[in-house]
Amino acid sequence: MRNSGRLTQLIQALRCLPGVGPKSAQRMSLHLLQHNREGARLLAEALLGAVEHIGLCRLCRTLTEHEICRSCSDGTRDDSLLCIVESPAEVFALEQSTGFKGRFFVLNGRLSPLDGIGPEELRLDLLEQRLAQGVVEELILATNTTVEGEATAHFIAEMAKQHGIKTSRIAYGVPYGGELEYVDGTTLAHAFNGRRQLT
Amino acid sequence: MRNSGRLTQLIQALRCLPGVGPKSAQRMSLHLLQHNREGARLLAEALLGAVEHIGLCRLCRTLTEHEICRSCSDGTRDDSLLCIVESPAEVFALEQSTGFKGRFFVLNGRLSPLDGIGPEELRLDLLEQRLAQGVVEELILATNTTVEGEATAHFIAEMAKQHGIKTSRIAYGVPYGGELEYVDGTTLAHAFNGRRQLT
Repeated sequence: MRNSGRLTQLIQALRCLPGVGPKSAQRMSLHLLQHNREGARLLAEALLGAVEHIGLCRLCRTLTEHEICRSCSDGTRDDSLLCIVESPAEVFALEQSTGFKGRFFVLNGRLSPLDGIGPEELRLDLLEQRLAQGVVEELILATNTTVEGEATAHFIAEMAKQHGIKTSRIAYGVPYGGELEYVDGTTLAHAFNGRRQLT
Repeated sequence: MRNSGRLTQLIQALRCLPGVGPKSAQRMSLHLLQHNREGARLLAEALLGAVEHIGLCRLCRTLTEHEICRSCSDGTRDDSLLCIVESPAEVFALEQSTGFKGRFFVLNGRLSPLDGIGPEELRLDLLEQRLAQGVVEELILATNTTVEGEATAHFIAEMAKQHGIKTSRIAYGVPYGGELEYVDGTTLAHAFNGRRQLT
């Protein structure tokens, strides 16, 4: 391949994006250089601006440009409800799809002793301080329903118990629009055992 | 959605990449900010470097950092063979898959009168100059096999005829590994009519 040095560098650099392999990276590079140089310039600026100015909220540890994120500084939200999620992406997903008006706490990871991720890395000390303040009444555990997510939820539930705080876990079940035939057995068992009375 | 301003800007900017919609753009942004800030910084630099330094080769009009690209300045290549392609991506594809050691000429587009793309936009004047030099003996028309690609190939073939230069068109046929059942009728007809004698 006779790519010039800077083109090779750009193709290589684009591969830091999730889901972008060598073919897509080449297609993206050529597209930008041939048809959208202004877009490439704006993207470079946006990347630098974001990397330089976006950090973690001091209270909830989500991504924000400010010391305290917009959600945490929103006085109309309910301080008694605290929802624990693994990453900022889940904050966005829950905000978009639920009417939740409580507070969030972002772990930025999940307990994974083999990868050296323990309570310190997730800043559970900050969470503990928050729980000790006596304002939170219900802790909603919205970590992923993976093995690590479950273990993390369990660990945090134990922590909440010591502070006498009620915890809840998001419901397991069949995804909306799902056909039972194609749902895995564990999910189906959870959905069956967690059935709700209709009438 | 409670994205901060710079995060929204980054998500928006990533959408200039082909095949990246709002969901992927958000996922990419969060991934970079959470897990690969160094990669984001390198990508920004690569984008700026590429946009600033990569232009079109004065001879073949492919993308290059230099006035004349590496392929054009390679003295070992055969000047009598000139392959016409629509974009630099096709130069890479042909270089990777064929042993072609002639020269390329990149149109950076195809004739499309409705979009205002005529012979001037494709710099066919440069191509004509090249043909007039009397060095090229065969012109290989490797434009896409779309309606516009065909029209472009036809137009250039007429031009070559006036200079008494032989032209050839890449072969139409069934893609390698293709099952005839799933190949469209036009391709199949081309493949059938273009059959080659084996023994």
